[in-house]
Amino acid sequence: MKEFNIIEDFFKAKSIQRKDVIIGIGDDAAVTRIPQGQALVTTTDTLISGVHFLADTAPHAIAQKAMAVNLSDLAAMGAEPAWISLSLSLPEVDESWLESFSEGLREHAIYYSVQLIGGDTVQGPLVITITAQGFVPFEQALTRSQAKPGDSVYVTGTLGDAGLGLQIAQKKCVLDVQLNKDYLLNRLNYPTPRLLVGTSIRRIASACIDVSDGLVSDIKHILKASECGATIHVDKLPMSQALKESVSSTQAIDYALSAGDDYELLFTVSEEQKGHLETTLASANVHATYIGQLNGCVGKLELRQADKPYEYNLKGYEHF
Amino acid sequence: MKEFNIIEDFFKAKSIQRKDVIIGIGDDAAVTRIPQGQALVTTTDTLISGVHFLADTAPHAIAQKAMAVNLSDLAAMGAEPAWISLSLSLPEVDESWLESFSEGLREHAIYYSVQLIGGDTVQGPLVITITAQGFVPFEQALTRSQAKPGDSVYVTGTLGDAGLGLQIAQKKCVLDVQLNKDYLLNRLNYPTPRLLVGTSIRRIASACIDVSDGLVSDIKHILKASECGATIHVDKLPMSQALKESVSSTQAIDYALSAGDDYELLFTVSEEQKGHLETTLASANVHATYIGQLNGCVGKLELRQADKPYEYNLKGYEHF
Repeated sequence: MKEFNIIEDFFKAKSIQRKDVIIGIGDDAAVTRIPQGQALVTTTDTLISGVHFLADTAPHAIAQKAMAVNLSDLAAMGAEPAWISLSLSLPEVDESWLESFSEGLREHAIYYSVQLIGGDTVQGPLVITITAQGFVPFEQALTRSQAKPGDSVYVTGTLGDAGLGLQIAQKKCVLDVQLNKDYLLNRLNYPTPRLLVGTSIRRIASACIDVSDGLVSDIKHILKASECGATIHVDKLPMSQALKESVSSTQAIDYALSAGDDYELLFTVSEEQKGHLETTLASANVHATYIGQLNGCVGKLELRQADKPYEYNLKGYEHF
Repeated sequence: MKEFNIIEDFFKAKSIQRKDVIIGIGDDAAVTRIPQGQALVTTTDTLISGVHFLADTAPHAIAQKAMAVNLSDLAAMGAEPAWISLSLSLPEVDESWLESFSEGLREHAIYYSVQLIGGDTVQGPLVITITAQGFVPFEQALTRSQAKPGDSVYVTGTLGDAGLGLQIAQKKCVLDVQLNKDYLLNRLNYPTPRLLVGTSIRRIASACIDVSDGLVSDIKHILKASECGATIHVDKLPMSQALKESVSSTQAIDYALSAGDDYELLFTVSEEQKGHLETTLASANVHATYIGQLNGCVGKLELRQADKPYEYNLKGYEHF
């Protein structure tokens, strides 16, 4: 089967049609239109079988995760997504795999109003690279570098779920409660990009990042870029019922601090903007939890539990 | 070594700084600015070791080829390049490999005024995916679909060089003349994206594609998209001295018809625009060769030699 047949047969027909796409799949490149007053936001993420997902993960989930991790980066910039390009390296042409994968992509494309505008399929190991493009109004992009000492630190959703989900998927942890198991596996395989939060806070938050490698690992990027320190109260870390019911409270905190793949947004807000944040989150019907405060001790991350220093050993996911 | 160290240490410092890049490497995503009146053009291509380049290819050449094949797609749309994103899957952190690869990328970035705005490095088999972005004025993008019967067919540069270069690199063909060997290997490893031709002909050509899979394979995309047929005169195919001196004339024609990886532009021009084309190519100091004519026999490609039908067997490169 030829390259253009895979893209045409499995992806083009399932693609949604946005009005800002002048030329989509089927030419040498895509041609699109950026709305006036908006900057282009671009991000690329690669998922490799056996590294970023287990080899037996459903192709439907692989597609949605590949898309979600990219949209999560756009969310962390306060951007709204528009288009994706897909590079798919496959060991062989497996039609049922491609059906399931392309269906997963299509569902997310419809849900997030994102059009697949280009692709490349090659024969090789199972590797998925997605480049996502979106917009943000000029001067409103959320960065990692504008946080200030005194700003409050917030995180969306709950932390640590995907980390325990991975242990379950790898059969390193066995849970009795099916509901908890399903919930945690779902959090691993079907992460939710926090796009609505990202666009809602873009004129309120001082800095933002998505939690992909783990809270401790990711907050350090903000501390470095903004030249701040932080105190995080581990008792305040938002954790799901499923996580808390499945492991000890110490283990739960370790997952929440160190496990990656949750794709929640971690952001900072100045004292003056806190009221604004509360009304904005309430009107958007989304939630974020206060977990600590920035300070002037550049690069230093202090964890506290009931006002005592909290010792931790685990590290966030490192790519090499 | 951590992901962000590879990008920061080997790529960020070597990146050029364009004025239209608001946020480059080092945040969740890049933020860039599109000039007014211009549409965004986006393309993605993946190169896999052992499939798209031989495992012993110099990393410097791999980087330049990965960039060139993407810029060639922009050239085929008549676009000018602006930014690239890089996804690099590497079996291990090999500093000398990364030095050479990043230097290859840097040289091309400077030459083509293209800024690396983002990247992802992961551990896995050697796979390089680049997404290139550029601009084209609204309504001026060159497509595959606007060619008409009667239009003349042109191709830039020479065809078949990279095909024979691959035979030499694979040691399936041994050449006595070192100069020819060097030239052909260079054409394989260091293709030139025809960007100046692309932007020069964008208001003149009726359709355009880059020759990546081979002339016969690629012209069929134009014939299909434009609902035309074509007669190509194999005696007119532009071939290098090196190719002609190295193989029989029949073999040379087969390489020129069927071998991929030349990254020349194949384009069509209406009778009325031919004068305009000649003056434009002359003033841009670039050359293109007339090789045939489009007709109304939809989808049919006829090859002729000295006014007799020419029989050929080889096929363009198929990805699966």
